[in-house]
Amino acid sequence: MRIALDAMGGDHAPAETVAGAIEAIRDDQALSVVLVGNEAALREELKERNCADMGISIQHASQTVEMDESPLSALRRKKDSSIRVAVDLVKSKGADAMVSAGNSGVVMATALYVLGKLPGVERPAIATIMPSLKDHFILLDAGANVDCKPLHLYQFAIMGEAYSRFILDIETPRVGLLGIGEEDAKGNELTKEAFKLIKNSHVQFIGNIEGQHIFSGEADVVVCDGFVGNIVLKVSEGLAETMAKMMKREIVEKSSASGKVGSLFFKEAFKGFKKKMDYSEYGGAPLLGISKPCIISHGRSSSKAIKNAIRVAGAFHSKGILDIISKELKEGLSGRKSVVVEK
Amino acid sequence: MRIALDAMGGDHAPAETVAGAIEAIRDDQALSVVLVGNEAALREELKERNCADMGISIQHASQTVEMDESPLSALRRKKDSSIRVAVDLVKSKGADAMVSAGNSGVVMATALYVLGKLPGVERPAIATIMPSLKDHFILLDAGANVDCKPLHLYQFAIMGEAYSRFILDIETPRVGLLGIGEEDAKGNELTKEAFKLIKNSHVQFIGNIEGQHIFSGEADVVVCDGFVGNIVLKVSEGLAETMAKMMKREIVEKSSASGKVGSLFFKEAFKGFKKKMDYSEYGGAPLLGISKPCIISHGRSSSKAIKNAIRVAGAFHSKGILDIISKELKEGLSGRKSVVVEK
Repeated sequence: MRIALDAMGGDHAPAETVAGAIEAIRDDQALSVVLVGNEAALREELKERNCADMGISIQHASQTVEMDESPLSALRRKKDSSIRVAVDLVKSKGADAMVSAGNSGVVMATALYVLGKLPGVERPAIATIMPSLKDHFILLDAGANVDCKPLHLYQFAIMGEAYSRFILDIETPRVGLLGIGEEDAKGNELTKEAFKLIKNSHVQFIGNIEGQHIFSGEADVVVCDGFVGNIVLKVSEGLAETMAKMMKREIVEKSSASGKVGSLFFKEAFKGFKKKMDYSEYGGAPLLGISKPCIISHGRSSSKAIKNAIRVAGAFHSKGILDIISKELKEGLSGRKSVVVEK
Repeated sequence: MRIALDAMGGDHAPAETVAGAIEAIRDDQALSVVLVGNEAALREELKERNCADMGISIQHASQTVEMDESPLSALRRKKDSSIRVAVDLVKSKGADAMVSAGNSGVVMATALYVLGKLPGVERPAIATIMPSLKDHFILLDAGANVDCKPLHLYQFAIMGEAYSRFILDIETPRVGLLGIGEEDAKGNELTKEAFKLIKNSHVQFIGNIEGQHIFSGEADVVVCDGFVGNIVLKVSEGLAETMAKMMKREIVEKSSASGKVGSLFFKEAFKGFKKKMDYSEYGGAPLLGISKPCIISHGRSSSKAIKNAIRVAGAFHSKGILDIISKELKEGLSGRKSVVVEK
């Protein structure tokens, strides 16, 4: 399998992207990686690491996309960006899947424009992985679609469930609809309609799930529109950081001697906690509903995050999840109910 | 000032509600409280506390509303509930304001039905107070309106700003619109339109604010629709609890001796943190846009939370905030721009 990696994407590119590619190939000999980006810079990175003949090739791209660039501007003016060239490689079958830690809006727009949607999918979604007390869960859409219709949420449920089943190896993922009350009839206009559609689908639907229960691990797949999903993601990041700062302040404010001892304990505990919260463990967020496997990684991705994203991109391709999703959207899951959705 | 207190509302009623009323009056002799609920039970509570002649009276109500009861059912079948009688007291001018830690949906529906909206207000909102690294901020709507129009969000901004100015004593509150990007043009259909309205109003508008920045204290007032607001509130509660559990587990998993010491430090730090997160410090959430001052308190309210809610209800009335809001919705703030909103 050949993965196209946007080697210029992310805050720590190209050092961490190249290192991640090398780690991925060391872990799995069946993988090969095409580093996409400034050839001279990438060659230099590889040389420093003595990895000239490892199943890593380079595809030059003369441009890079900034993190704050708009999708429209990037699509128009950066036709030779590392994102665009990586996506083009997948289109031309020069690669089976792509990974980028760059501007996620631009990756989504470029993938949609160049590769198109999977047949039957109305709107592709970003599925992000979040930690729970039990393990972790996926949340989708995490920001691709700010205004959704009930059918979109229904399709997010089908796609997220399949991804959870095949990539996260959960036998029968429990799907919840993010809402503001547990009762079936609670929610806004969008979720009340989506509820009915998901209820009639083949997925194991646990109904509405309230915000306070997502982190206790009651659902494996949490469905919401991209506006809500993105806010949940960002609020969680912000609160986790704020809590850590507040607690640290509490400890430091204690009398100096015991404060120092406490601070040490806190540091240790927080390290373990951070590991659990760490997106880099889970290997990035798939763009579900694009016709080919595309994975976006956090802008702060370390080599480990990139390595895991490459691994997931490989599995995404090799397990044929897109065919499965396409089939399940059309027919439901064999042996379970299928649903016909009218638009 | 006379505050009607739903003495049967909340998980710890009537013990904590009665205790809260007593504490409020001890703190502020200008207050008097009408305890609304089962007369015999309340008389017993007062007797136990030797508070027969303290400016506390009792108004009997034969019914109580359950926490999971629907607003419609409560309005129809519980016409003598402690919530309903407390609201009726405000309507008949037997009280200036009301406080309840009971079923918040029922309180909102009853207040809306009995007291009606403040002139000029399209939709009343629940304004909840949340902690930030700097201090705290108010978030509205926290759940009253699941489907909003731009005009509603605009009015939430005006109402929240006035409340923040007069009750939280912030001279020029910074108002932010909760969204998924900092750029003016980012957001969903609802927030993009609301952005323009708020921008043209008299409030100090800092534009879109992303979820990760609300807890760092960049805004004093955060505006969103009730669906998003309720999810933010619940996700925050859930994550804070989960983080605490995860970190505790980390500490306990360390070797037993140091684990115990660490656990002690953690407990201390967490206590301080919890105090900061504690809604009971801030005195409940006002229903902004109802024609009279109504405050809802958390279902888990302690006597301290009730005391603070009573204090805030008194200030809400005595500062004449509702008249101010009504005027500012109509004319803007004198000396600053006003806005004419077409429906």
